[in-house]
Amino acid sequence: MNYRMIKYTLGWLLLFEAGFFLVPLLTAAVYGESEIWCFAVSMLICIAAAGLLFIGRPRSRVLYAREGFVIVALSWIFLSIFGAIPFVLSGVTPSYVDALFETVSGFTTTGASILPRVEDAPRCILMWRSFTHWVGGMGVLVFIMAILPLSGGQNMHIMKAESPGPSVSKLVPRVRTTALILYVIYFALTVLQFVLLLLGGMSVFDALNTSFSTAGTGGFGFRNDSMASFSSYIQIVVTVFMLLFSLNFSSYYLAFKGRFKDAFNSEIRVFIAIVAVSTAAITLNIRDSFATVGEAIKHAAFSVASIISTTGFMTVDFDLWPQFSKMVILMVMFIGACAGSTGGGIKVSRIIILFKGIGREIKTLLHPHRVRKITMDARPVDREVVRSVNSYIMVYVLVFFASMVIVSFDNHSFTTGFTAVSATINNVGPGLDMVGPTQNFSFFSIPSKLVLIFDMLAGRLELFPMLLLFTPSTWRNK
Amino acid sequence: MNYRMIKYTLGWLLLFEAGFFLVPLLTAAVYGESEIWCFAVSMLICIAAAGLLFIGRPRSRVLYAREGFVIVALSWIFLSIFGAIPFVLSGVTPSYVDALFETVSGFTTTGASILPRVEDAPRCILMWRSFTHWVGGMGVLVFIMAILPLSGGQNMHIMKAESPGPSVSKLVPRVRTTALILYVIYFALTVLQFVLLLLGGMSVFDALNTSFSTAGTGGFGFRNDSMASFSSYIQIVVTVFMLLFSLNFSSYYLAFKGRFKDAFNSEIRVFIAIVAVSTAAITLNIRDSFATVGEAIKHAAFSVASIISTTGFMTVDFDLWPQFSKMVILMVMFIGACAGSTGGGIKVSRIIILFKGIGREIKTLLHPHRVRKITMDARPVDREVVRSVNSYIMVYVLVFFASMVIVSFDNHSFTTGFTAVSATINNVGPGLDMVGPTQNFSFFSIPSKLVLIFDMLAGRLELFPMLLLFTPSTWRNK
Repeated sequence: MNYRMIKYTLGWLLLFEAGFFLVPLLTAAVYGESEIWCFAVSMLICIAAAGLLFIGRPRSRVLYAREGFVIVALSWIFLSIFGAIPFVLSGVTPSYVDALFETVSGFTTTGASILPRVEDAPRCILMWRSFTHWVGGMGVLVFIMAILPLSGGQNMHIMKAESPGPSVSKLVPRVRTTALILYVIYFALTVLQFVLLLLGGMSVFDALNTSFSTAGTGGFGFRNDSMASFSSYIQIVVTVFMLLFSLNFSSYYLAFKGRFKDAFNSEIRVFIAIVAVSTAAITLNIRDSFATVGEAIKHAAFSVASIISTTGFMTVDFDLWPQFSKMVILMVMFIGACAGSTGGGIKVSRIIILFKGIGREIKTLLHPHRVRKITMDARPVDREVVRSVNSYIMVYVLVFFASMVIVSFDNHSFTTGFTAVSATINNVGPGLDMVGPTQNFSFFSIPSKLVLIFDMLAGRLELFPMLLLFTPSTWRNK
Repeated sequence: MNYRMIKYTLGWLLLFEAGFFLVPLLTAAVYGESEIWCFAVSMLICIAAAGLLFIGRPRSRVLYAREGFVIVALSWIFLSIFGAIPFVLSGVTPSYVDALFETVSGFTTTGASILPRVEDAPRCILMWRSFTHWVGGMGVLVFIMAILPLSGGQNMHIMKAESPGPSVSKLVPRVRTTALILYVIYFALTVLQFVLLLLGGMSVFDALNTSFSTAGTGGFGFRNDSMASFSSYIQIVVTVFMLLFSLNFSSYYLAFKGRFKDAFNSEIRVFIAIVAVSTAAITLNIRDSFATVGEAIKHAAFSVASIISTTGFMTVDFDLWPQFSKMVILMVMFIGACAGSTGGGIKVSRIIILFKGIGREIKTLLHPHRVRKITMDARPVDREVVRSVNSYIMVYVLVFFASMVIVSFDNHSFTTGFTAVSATINNVGPGLDMVGPTQNFSFFSIPSKLVLIFDMLAGRLELFPMLLLFTPSTWRNK
């Protein structure tokens, strides 16, 4: 294990985090909020810690697969540990574990909060919460790698470990250039949403917060009722952008290059179909609760977009809906967004491969002597990818169950435990019952909060980096 | 598709079912119950239907894999359709769907009932319910194959499709002899339990019912409070036999042959460990509710044995336990019994292969260039078996979710829907909330009951036979 290189990368990471603190610091300055010192102190702590980590330069810059996983897992943990400092200093959260929960929820773009009334929090704190979504959405390590040539061209391990989805496609031969293109798309879409929200009459602060939260598919709100009190125009813009940020960013590049057929691939088609069918099903189920069918469609579409993109904004309390609509919400929570987006969940491409794998199994049972390959978009799916999708779902189910067992010590309802784990491991935010859209996560015990923190990180990093961190053989020198 | 051979086999199946009706018929005769005519008429209907199915003798007796699946799936459906007739004729169930639910629940050894008060039912009906468990426990087709040489030695397809577990091991070179050995073990264990229950002061009727229900790991009771009002001796005997019927029957044969090391294989060791740890965890969690620790252990052990064996008897209402104990109950419900037993669930051997697969995946991530094989009991696990375990769990998750969505139309609680599906697909019987141990399944709508009937059959036949029945390409002639 190349410990020095790990330390060195973490040092750079904390320097970047010190830079991230400039955003809430400026916000505090603009609004003349007294909490400005919290961010100044946090910056200094990050810089000092970075200085300590830079002691002992790496002799070799070679990173193997396992170092890649360890760096990614540790980076996200370090980012959260230091990102939680302003919450503690400002006294917004009652304890450090709560501050850590809020920060992990931010960076992993979950959006599950322990704050009962967000409107009571200072604006700089709200800005920091939304900004962590934006930073976490695209992954911070790939960003650093795109700017700094840290390791000798072996960024692919990092990118694989940090990017969501079963496989990473390089748009251009160089990993760094690919990453830069994706960040430009991310930035451009965020700016576009910001402008559209301003045109709808939102304040700069509100529009910035909303754009950051939507872009990262996070869901931290700055009003107690999330998006319920905004105009239909704003709600529709947010609906559309939640969906746009759920698509594979590569598709935007391919479309830009005129390769529309490649851009509009089967994952995106299936994603759109799921959104359409779920919205229609919920609309039919809840239409009586609203004055017009249009209202019902608007709220159904917002909720489906919010949950399948794993954002977690809300315009209505879907915990009050009939059981069938709640089941649809829960289903799209598990499915999640497309690979290569900022959204969480199992990912549509994995679901497609899962179904195709089952189809192949059934055909093999019927005709045992024919060999078949799974194809997607007319290309054969690599056997390793199929295997990794299987392993992913197995590990997912096991982590899910283990988490539920630990959380059950708190003795809350089955629905609360099940959807709390589901809302965190899928990086969604709200669940049902005691973690419903109008509730928050503050009532959980410390062990449960730690488990849910683990689940948020495991969900965002697609399980294996976090799992390897706790595997003894990762640390054994062979 | 060899339709004539399928018809011919189903004909024999119905003749056997006519024979099965002799048991409740004799019961009715002994107790002088007026419902005797229901079973006599049912017998005649079976014989008449068999006669119709025998028209057009098969030209070829060759069965390919897909015919094997179709025969198994159709046999269980036919068995249930005709087995439901006495319930309807006697007026015990309010509708045919309810009668079908009760019969499927019987043959699949689920034990979920739609009868609110079993003590009101005639004894011959109670005997028929318990006897369906006994018939379904070991699989009726393999039984027929063991007695009649129906097909030209290709019983392996049938045995694979009807026997629980990821792979079937032949104890002796001939499939028929293997099947006969297993039935002798089944019969001997049932008789042993019957005798031990008689020694505990149970009546012949009660002891016979209890033995049939336990042997099949079914769980239909004949008292409204299931096993709660029996003596500790009886409860302990039932606990032990529920566990004995959860073990791989091959192990009894191996132990009989003196191959103790082979008999006490890793599946049995893991099974015992799970039972011990779960019982200890629940005992610690519920000990305050009982006068003595011994009482707590007795009820915890009974409940764990009842649920992991997927029997479903009960001595206490575990739906009133703290959430943690309920989660443990739910967990062992999913794990289920050992392969090659009469129990349901995912099966311990699949869980072991699942964990070993994940372990291999983690090692492959850490050291990508080493090739590894999964071993069990020092033998490499066939790659096909690993793949089939993966497919099994994927299909399981999908069927589970799809069932929950349909059942959610009934608008019951999430816990009710989740555990109703879990209790049926795992062939357990009781769940939580509205399907808890003291409740019954009568309140579900007809569509929900049909879904749960499908789940019981899919669970008992390990998903694929039922799934293939509804796959168009099964029926296409290629």
